[in-house]
Amino acid sequence: MNLSDNSKLLDNAVQQLSRLPGVGEKSAQRLALHLLRQPADVAVALGRSLIELREGVKYCRRCHNICDTEICAVCADTRRDSTTICVVETVKDVITLEGTNEYHGLYHVLGGVISPVDGVGPSDIEIDSLVERVKNEDVKEVILALSATMEGDTTNYYIFRRLADTGVKLSILARGVSVGGELEYTDSLTLGRSLLQRIPYENSVAR
Amino acid sequence: MNLSDNSKLLDNAVQQLSRLPGVGEKSAQRLALHLLRQPADVAVALGRSLIELREGVKYCRRCHNICDTEICAVCADTRRDSTTICVVETVKDVITLEGTNEYHGLYHVLGGVISPVDGVGPSDIEIDSLVERVKNEDVKEVILALSATMEGDTTNYYIFRRLADTGVKLSILARGVSVGGELEYTDSLTLGRSLLQRIPYENSVAR
Repeated sequence: MNLSDNSKLLDNAVQQLSRLPGVGEKSAQRLALHLLRQPADVAVALGRSLIELREGVKYCRRCHNICDTEICAVCADTRRDSTTICVVETVKDVITLEGTNEYHGLYHVLGGVISPVDGVGPSDIEIDSLVERVKNEDVKEVILALSATMEGDTTNYYIFRRLADTGVKLSILARGVSVGGELEYTDSLTLGRSLLQRIPYENSVAR
Repeated sequence: MNLSDNSKLLDNAVQQLSRLPGVGEKSAQRLALHLLRQPADVAVALGRSLIELREGVKYCRRCHNICDTEICAVCADTRRDSTTICVVETVKDVITLEGTNEYHGLYHVLGGVISPVDGVGPSDIEIDSLVERVKNEDVKEVILALSATMEGDTTNYYIFRRLADTGVKLSILARGVSVGGELEYTDSLTLGRSLLQRIPYENSVAR
């Protein structure tokens, strides 16, 4: 006798849960049975929040960050420096960068990187709209904060070419030894890069 | 700027997901953003399945196993041996035991074990209804398949006392299950063996 013979509802919930990344069928079963042991509103609130998220979520018309309105909270915040745009791959990266508390400009979410292997070309991600922003808004600097992979590098170079005649300052995240990281465990490519791009000691001290 | 400033919908989904066991806030964020990248019906189907599970699930009137109807599929199956009842803690244990393909009788789901520390007494779990079944149905054998923990042993002994005057044969899973181990984490081969080699309850008590 299978699980599905007992309760199709349970079976369905387990199937749906096991489609989540990192959740196997055993974990899915445990999660479903956990929800059954909780007060009813726990499962209902979870289910409802997922449906509402997927059906209600919007993306900022300007920077394509996630939001509930037409313009995201970052773009709408007039205290932020609108002359600087940080280019990232995903909404997750916006969250990560906001977590550093070091950035006070705006964002531009590409929605991916150029990857011919995966069939992703420049027109599949939000590069045209980035170029439009640089041309129409008062942008002084564009910071490239894509992954340090071949695809990230390709995308960086493509953006560099597209923005070359705009005169905007184009910069890229420093590559180097991670803070708190031991030299012994830093890969040699990164270490080499951090050596080439060494900075005056005075500039390294937090103020 | 916090996540919640960007999208309350995302924030809510993350909060709800992180209430699941083993899901921290980082994982919850990853799951929510994963769902946003999928076609809309993935998140909606998942959300709906959880709501339907919690609102629609029933428990068998006879054995308290999970089901979508009044009587569960095991109890309704006339090919199964209705003279044998296997007593388990949870619905999960029914699924695990069915997975061994070694058992063809009926079940009785207690819904827990006696645990004074957690404030669970005999009347909080389905022991009275088990005694009723043994008295009113044509039951020849009751198999105790609770976890090999102190609480499980206490519950076994309590059931042994309650059923002493009914004359029913009371047996217990062979201790192929490692002592101190929980049923959920026992592999099905070992579990199947322990079912085949069950011994009379009297013999299981250390003298």
